[in-house]
Amino acid sequence: MYRGGMPRTKGDHEARRRDVSEAVWQVMAARGFAGLTLRAVAAELDATTGLLTHYFPTKQALVRYALDLLDQRTASRPRRHTGAGLAALRDALLDILPLTPEATDSNRIWVSSWDTALSDPDLSTDYGRKYANGRARLTERVAAAQELGELPPGDPARIAAGAQSFVLGLVVQALFDPAAFPPQRQVEMLDDYLATLSAAR
Amino acid sequence: MYRGGMPRTKGDHEARRRDVSEAVWQVMAARGFAGLTLRAVAAELDATTGLLTHYFPTKQALVRYALDLLDQRTASRPRRHTGAGLAALRDALLDILPLTPEATDSNRIWVSSWDTALSDPDLSTDYGRKYANGRARLTERVAAAQELGELPPGDPARIAAGAQSFVLGLVVQALFDPAAFPPQRQVEMLDDYLATLSAAR
Repeated sequence: MYRGGMPRTKGDHEARRRDVSEAVWQVMAARGFAGLTLRAVAAELDATTGLLTHYFPTKQALVRYALDLLDQRTASRPRRHTGAGLAALRDALLDILPLTPEATDSNRIWVSSWDTALSDPDLSTDYGRKYANGRARLTERVAAAQELGELPPGDPARIAAGAQSFVLGLVVQALFDPAAFPPQRQVEMLDDYLATLSAAR
Repeated sequence: MYRGGMPRTKGDHEARRRDVSEAVWQVMAARGFAGLTLRAVAAELDATTGLLTHYFPTKQALVRYALDLLDQRTASRPRRHTGAGLAALRDALLDILPLTPEATDSNRIWVSSWDTALSDPDLSTDYGRKYANGRARLTERVAAAQELGELPPGDPARIAAGAQSFVLGLVVQALFDPAAFPPQRQVEMLDDYLATLSAAR
């Protein structure tokens, strides 16, 4: 299918672009950034490496594309909306955890991207900003839960940073030991955490 | 110094081995596993790539060596011993956090190794076992704090898994945003976490 060279029409081009994106995603989910090569993406697509170089002239172009794809898919993933206050905070934290195969793939790709991100100062700053934005969104939900009297007073930004730490570390543990951290246990652990936050006075 | 070829005596050999280890460590701390190449280690040592191939015939041998080095240095790092019960749990969690430049380097290398570890099933299992062992050690300390009445009752393994999640996620956030998570703030956040655990009834 891909051996025929470049696409002829705009529709072909977009369809192929989607297939390329899906192949990059599958390679990252299976092998991480360490295994993200033109050769691996070509094999996943059943295409030639030569075709791929039209899309990605360099390894760095492929990595940049993969990072953008990770951002896009994260931004467009479905979100829980079950309530306000503490329920909304819980929703946002559940949205991060690897509770489904899709969420496991994207978390696995996020964790694997940290190596690349930490070794590039610009990218590292960019990741720092992403996590700061995530904390800012959690801070709003903590403050709303405090207003409803569901969480005790205290600096909401500090509580949000703690909650983000808790779920990020739980992601890492669940990825390395899925048998010890099935979805139900992750949810129980998060609920324990929220219960201790609520109870603390 | 390194251009002269292989070492002549056992003492030379061991001294060189230490220098090679240090160079591998420095490359990983600066560039992660993504940047760990024979060329980078050779440059760090001011040696030829040819010399390095005596130690590491393949990239995989270099990666395995780096992973072993990370294990050794983690096992031999200094540990806090300030007390029993909750103080001992706090010590173990503080020992994990990037509170010094040395602890920052080793955490940065650990986080960067996750990409490699997740893409290799055996290594992934091995990492899962390492974290399970870490949780088992924390579980003993949680149980001891419970016996002293410093922590409320509840499954100590589940509390330990929560505490490990909290510090691992805090490590990741502190690596990406050291300005937002200076050592003092990390310690305050950990103390907040332990205080909410202690207060929960």
